[in-house]
Amino acid sequence: MLGNFTYHNPTRLHFGEQALEELAGELKEYGSRVLLVYGGGSIKRYGLYDQVVEVLKKSGKEIFEVPDVMPNPTVDKLYEGCAAAKAADVDLILAVGGGSVCDYAKAVSVSAWCEEDPWEKYYLRMEEPDNQIIPVGCILTMVGTGSEMNGGSVITNPTQKRKIGHVFGSNVMPRFTILNPALTFTVPLRQMSAGIYDAFNHICEQYFSGQDDNTTDYLAEGLMCSLIVSSRRALKDPKDYEARSNIMWAATWALNTLLAMGKSTDWEVHMIGQAVGAYTDATHGMTLSAVSLPYYRKILPDGLPKFARFAANVWGIDARGKSQEELALAGLDAMKGWMQELGVALDLRQLGVKEEMLEGIADGTFLLTGGYRTLTRQDVIEILRESLEGENV
Amino acid sequence: MLGNFTYHNPTRLHFGEQALEELAGELKEYGSRVLLVYGGGSIKRYGLYDQVVEVLKKSGKEIFEVPDVMPNPTVDKLYEGCAAAKAADVDLILAVGGGSVCDYAKAVSVSAWCEEDPWEKYYLRMEEPDNQIIPVGCILTMVGTGSEMNGGSVITNPTQKRKIGHVFGSNVMPRFTILNPALTFTVPLRQMSAGIYDAFNHICEQYFSGQDDNTTDYLAEGLMCSLIVSSRRALKDPKDYEARSNIMWAATWALNTLLAMGKSTDWEVHMIGQAVGAYTDATHGMTLSAVSLPYYRKILPDGLPKFARFAANVWGIDARGKSQEELALAGLDAMKGWMQELGVALDLRQLGVKEEMLEGIADGTFLLTGGYRTLTRQDVIEILRESLEGENV
Repeated sequence: MLGNFTYHNPTRLHFGEQALEELAGELKEYGSRVLLVYGGGSIKRYGLYDQVVEVLKKSGKEIFEVPDVMPNPTVDKLYEGCAAAKAADVDLILAVGGGSVCDYAKAVSVSAWCEEDPWEKYYLRMEEPDNQIIPVGCILTMVGTGSEMNGGSVITNPTQKRKIGHVFGSNVMPRFTILNPALTFTVPLRQMSAGIYDAFNHICEQYFSGQDDNTTDYLAEGLMCSLIVSSRRALKDPKDYEARSNIMWAATWALNTLLAMGKSTDWEVHMIGQAVGAYTDATHGMTLSAVSLPYYRKILPDGLPKFARFAANVWGIDARGKSQEELALAGLDAMKGWMQELGVALDLRQLGVKEEMLEGIADGTFLLTGGYRTLTRQDVIEILRESLEGENV
Repeated sequence: MLGNFTYHNPTRLHFGEQALEELAGELKEYGSRVLLVYGGGSIKRYGLYDQVVEVLKKSGKEIFEVPDVMPNPTVDKLYEGCAAAKAADVDLILAVGGGSVCDYAKAVSVSAWCEEDPWEKYYLRMEEPDNQIIPVGCILTMVGTGSEMNGGSVITNPTQKRKIGHVFGSNVMPRFTILNPALTFTVPLRQMSAGIYDAFNHICEQYFSGQDDNTTDYLAEGLMCSLIVSSRRALKDPKDYEARSNIMWAATWALNTLLAMGKSTDWEVHMIGQAVGAYTDATHGMTLSAVSLPYYRKILPDGLPKFARFAANVWGIDARGKSQEELALAGLDAMKGWMQELGVALDLRQLGVKEEMLEGIADGTFLLTGGYRTLTRQDVIEILRESLEGENV
């Protein structure tokens, strides 16, 4: 474990098919005014909305609502939520939905009482909150982002073509989260796969960095192995509760700060993926899958021992008779095979990216220094072009 | 992930060579009266006592002390701590030492304001606290128990020959913990090994139970692999900071409730080990190592697939050409080889156990139902006798 760090994750997680029964107990901790935020119609269609509203009413809460939170929440939607939270002076923001809704709830929680433009303060300038923070609770219906147990919040500014994620500290993490794997059964298969790949990539971003022998990397390998096994079961039978519950739990731990403790991390795939997302509004997990393989092939020579270890420990590839490079490449091949089983996007054309967007996407890509290689703008162009030309597939 | 569960671990961990610098910030959260609890002379000998006292004084704290907390804290020592905490009406209990000192601090924290005999209420009857709980902070100097990030507290009643551990909830967990791996350099090698085996066995107790494919078990395998690799480095060079830091971090996660989420757990090795400890006052980790192998050999037929998986995933044993039983046994052999490298006790004679104690130890052993087999009293006798007769070695 390198350097000095602080680990603190106070989110209280209630997990299981009966987890919603814990909501009433949690609500006792807060005042009577609750802002309910959610996305499209699916929580109404499947009855979850009615269940939650019933618990809120029985708990004596006054309900205010911000519906229609979009998959990549925009800065205008953030302003709308801030106005609603402030006008009603709410005591709690309750997010019901996937990672975008949780991200959005956290954005509103730090922004509502911010005295300047929160997009500038908390996203462009990445400052720490110094105003009142409204507590957040989450009821998760889609798996992948890890937003349910971290301080992360991604907001998109379509005019500026910027999609920026701020990872806030433990004071912004959800106070509580309800995780019922059965709620994820209704997610379309394509979304399930995108979420699984998103979670897997969160682990990769933290794993493919550093030269030391770190406990955290062994935990990362365990989570990857579990995701691979359980995703194959879920692909066969999406209602396999055991598989879906393992996926949900692994996805939470994939991005709740644990895997980043005492080590350097990469996050360049997310930087490229977010730049693609700002241009296309494509599903987050798919933007990651479409650029991952060209990116990892590019940095493989700089992190060869780790890629070889990945092949052996995660994909169970026999090292005998292989050079370190052959082993490493066999690992990426195995990963590609699994991505094909999942059906996630392997090329950017599928996501609506066109040749003429490449320069703009490269301009919008932050170049980070934590991974095995710091990319140049030209590297980004090459990665995007390799994906666009379908050389992955 | 099986059943419904709640995960909540609010302990704030400061990790690294400069972690003590975070103490002053933590102290601001509490009133001025601090009860410092610690063990023998080593924290004075190596200067840690003076450093801590200096921070406390600079922070304007009034210091009260309970020194000489023994390795297996007794109920009489608990009464002494309660009287001191109550008389001084302390705002914080600061534990400086190993797991026993942390366990003791938590025992005093729930017991000081208890209106009846805390041994009866919190240990014999295992009730949940309903009185004021004094906050606890820890500065850890020895690795193994995981007490720094859990609600566990083991107290021994030598008169009754009972050693009982109560795992309290998150309201009793340390509010903060300082983990500086360099502080563990001065621990004698035998203690280091006992601590490593203690941590490893904590993982085993949670791993060897259940038939499902659970994310938690993959995390357990990762932690075991890391402990094995890092312990071998630490045996060669006890001042290898990287190795000692990985051991410290793995030991914390081995027993901070994560590995028990959504699955059944065993804990029978601890039950037998604690019964041995009540008779002999032997080092906790050594009581576990001395009974582990006979115990696992006895339950192996009942949990064969898990023991085979353990051999392949933790010890890297090639499954080809082996029956499941041969593979499983090869895993235990590999574990025995590693225990011999560590130099932990493999037979009870080393710990001062004599034939005539066996019946009493068996009487003092709780028989739990979470593992692959529920032992009978006769099973316990056989396990103890196998260890006593040195059939391990």
